Amino acid sequence: MSLSDLSREDLTELHAQLTLAYEELVAQGLKLDLTRGKPSAAQLDLSNELLTLPGAGKFTAEAGVDCRNYGGTQGLVELREIFSPLLQVPVEQLVAGDNASLSIMHDTLVFSLLKGTVGGEPWVRQPTRFICPVPGYDRHFALCEQFGIEMIGVPLGEHGPDLDQVRELVASDPAVKGIWIVPTYANPTGAVYTEGVTRALVEMPTAAPDFRIFWDNAYAVHHLTDSETPAIDVLGLASAAGHPDRVFVFASTSKITFAGAGVSFFAGSPANVAWYLAHLSKRTIGPDKVNHLRHASYLKSPEGVRELMRRHRAVIAPKFDQVIEILTERLGQYETASWTRPDGGYFVSLDVADGTATRVVALAKTAGIVMTAAGAAFPYGLDPRDRNIRIAPTMPEPADVAAAIAGLTTCVLLAATEQRLAG
Amino acid sequence: MSLSDLSREDLTELHAQLTLAYEELVAQGLKLDLTRGKPSAAQLDLSNELLTLPGAGKFTAEAGVDCRNYGGTQGLVELREIFSPLLQVPVEQLVAGDNASLSIMHDTLVFSLLKGTVGGEPWVRQPTRFICPVPGYDRHFALCEQFGIEMIGVPLGEHGPDLDQVRELVASDPAVKGIWIVPTYANPTGAVYTEGVTRALVEMPTAAPDFRIFWDNAYAVHHLTDSETPAIDVLGLASAAGHPDRVFVFASTSKITFAGAGVSFFAGSPANVAWYLAHLSKRTIGPDKVNHLRHASYLKSPEGVRELMRRHRAVIAPKFDQVIEILTERLGQYETASWTRPDGGYFVSLDVADGTATRVVALAKTAGIVMTAAGAAFPYGLDPRDRNIRIAPTMPEPADVAAAIAGLTTCVLLAATEQRLAG
Repeated sequence: MSLSDLSREDLTELHAQLTLAYEELVAQGLKLDLTRGKPSAAQLDLSNELLTLPGAGKFTAEAGVDCRNYGGTQGLVELREIFSPLLQVPVEQLVAGDNASLSIMHDTLVFSLLKGTVGGEPWVRQPTRFICPVPGYDRHFALCEQFGIEMIGVPLGEHGPDLDQVRELVASDPAVKGIWIVPTYANPTGAVYTEGVTRALVEMPTAAPDFRIFWDNAYAVHHLTDSETPAIDVLGLASAAGHPDRVFVFASTSKITFAGAGVSFFAGSPANVAWYLAHLSKRTIGPDKVNHLRHASYLKSPEGVRELMRRHRAVIAPKFDQVIEILTERLGQYETASWTRPDGGYFVSLDVADGTATRVVALAKTAGIVMTAAGAAFPYGLDPRDRNIRIAPTMPEPADVAAAIAGLTTCVLLAATEQRLAG
Repeated sequence: MSLSDLSREDLTELHAQLTLAYEELVAQGLKLDLTRGKPSAAQLDLSNELLTLPGAGKFTAEAGVDCRNYGGTQGLVELREIFSPLLQVPVEQLVAGDNASLSIMHDTLVFSLLKGTVGGEPWVRQPTRFICPVPGYDRHFALCEQFGIEMIGVPLGEHGPDLDQVRELVASDPAVKGIWIVPTYANPTGAVYTEGVTRALVEMPTAAPDFRIFWDNAYAVHHLTDSETPAIDVLGLASAAGHPDRVFVFASTSKITFAGAGVSFFAGSPANVAWYLAHLSKRTIGPDKVNHLRHASYLKSPEGVRELMRRHRAVIAPKFDQVIEILTERLGQYETASWTRPDGGYFVSLDVADGTATRVVALAKTAGIVMTAAGAAFPYGLDPRDRNIRIAPTMPEPADVAAAIAGLTTCVLLAATEQRLAG
């Protein structure tokens, strides 16, 4: 029953059925939004204790610091102690910041552009290119675009990007200054980097002496199964490879506590941490330490975080199961699309028939199902095969997820049959 | 009894007395710190209600927004409504951010450098100079130094900088792109800009079409007397003068609620706000809205802020009175130093005998009284007359303020007599 096996007659009939189904879908007047990887209200409720913390009279941190006042650029040590083992970075190489790791990435780029990395020249004075494993995170790519950094897409597999391509690019071009990596449950494919791939990335010779891996461990503890893949000690591996300063690590609690009111992290070699803090100290007299204290008293320990993440999983894993189930049931037999079955993170990556993703998203929109724009997971928004669609199932209610995905499958098949009939 | 009237003999005797007094001072082994304008614990205690806010189950903003989730780059409207009349800027032209206006100033500079202002070329591609009224705020100057922006000091009077010098500089040099202004109770002199001076600044012809006034209204509501000078409608004046985009306004609650955990503000013309938000949206998906809600429910109204500031005044005004009193009592008769009597803000600016400020600060340090480095209030840390010392009396206990200022006066006179005897 693969689409490619159907006769023109059968295809025409299927197309007619799908057109009818699509008309019915539009008539339902749905209003569903699967665009962004936002936690649902039920997930946010898990951390409502934060709304009354740190608590009356509670403003003194372990080291005797008054969290209400200025200072302490590196952030509270008790908070860094909780996340150090989870991110596999030493406490003293971990910096705790404000509510968004995206901001830390932005600032790290800005410092590199205007001031240069440790021992390097300002990037703004040189042509600068970044490698972008694709599909990837649109906000990473937007940062590059914002600052005129040319992006080079390299296909991302289950355990990392095509290493031959990456090695070739960094070895031959001194303008290649960086690579975006989401090592655990990558956005949107769910790829999990292995220690072997990581080692290759920190070991590879680079033409640029100031090449940097932007290691965004956004989903380090965001497991969807019992196999809770631990973070890789990327700083240790880089150090062992003789490239201690190659890696900038980023993370946050945006999808652990509150998406808009959590804490974020930067980690790196001692030299990179000193570099980051020196530039950061021009920008601020310190992070929101009351929010650090609030988080430290709520989360308590690494195990406290792990337990909270299991409660998140209880809320969202069924939504992922539903997505996979409906995709399998309604698309499986036609062999025109494929999708990921992530073990963690926030997304399912759907590849529809080549050349139809834009059409599918447009059809869905007309039917009241808003998906992330086709191509969003690619540099400049350009998916060379126009086939990738990112599904973000965490935010809507389960019934809405089901309705949206069911509707989406109609659009996927309608676009695929249209294309075949036109071809 | 002016120092300059003393005979060499009397001077020698005074120097001997002061040397003895200084030795006694050193022997006391003081440990006092008057370096930074930090609020005291008693001031921070005023806002301890924030430690349990927004409160159980409270996470929905007026517009129905879930403050725990992503989004809302401009910040909560109920918070902006409170500060709009206090800062004299329209609600829709006000952006609420995270815990530091210094960060907003940093980012505004970064956006101007890397992207250019509205309709302008990136500053990073052109020579860029800033006018710095002196003495001024060291962290403003540190930002310029960080980004290689050349600073030109212009003397600051009681109501603003020397306007002839400013007009001449901006009219003749297209590289002059900005000026730092603290309009109300300037750091460190307490200068208060008048509407006339403000009008002159927004009206003056500038060689650079993208000239910007960095209007840091850090102490807009920080009165020390009953005369509560209102903020000037600088955006309205700039608009009326035909230069609506000339002004960036900054403010924060650092010295209203918690210094490390407050909220900050950016304001400007509609075009500048759109410009700022467009660049900001690459950096973050939104500010900490839970902290916005916390502040809105605590402060409640503009009058709520004014009342809180009166309670701050009750804590700190006596410390300022003490400083003025001791300076007057112990230095007045010698006519070798002068100081400000601010009506608000966080500092007293002390001018000692020309060429002795560095020596005074060193003497004080040996005696365990840590003052801000001499010259700190000048670009590159260079006070051309080596005479200015910034006194920050808010943080220490009243008895410590008294002991520190009394000790400081001994150092001031000792250095002055040393210099006269050597001269």
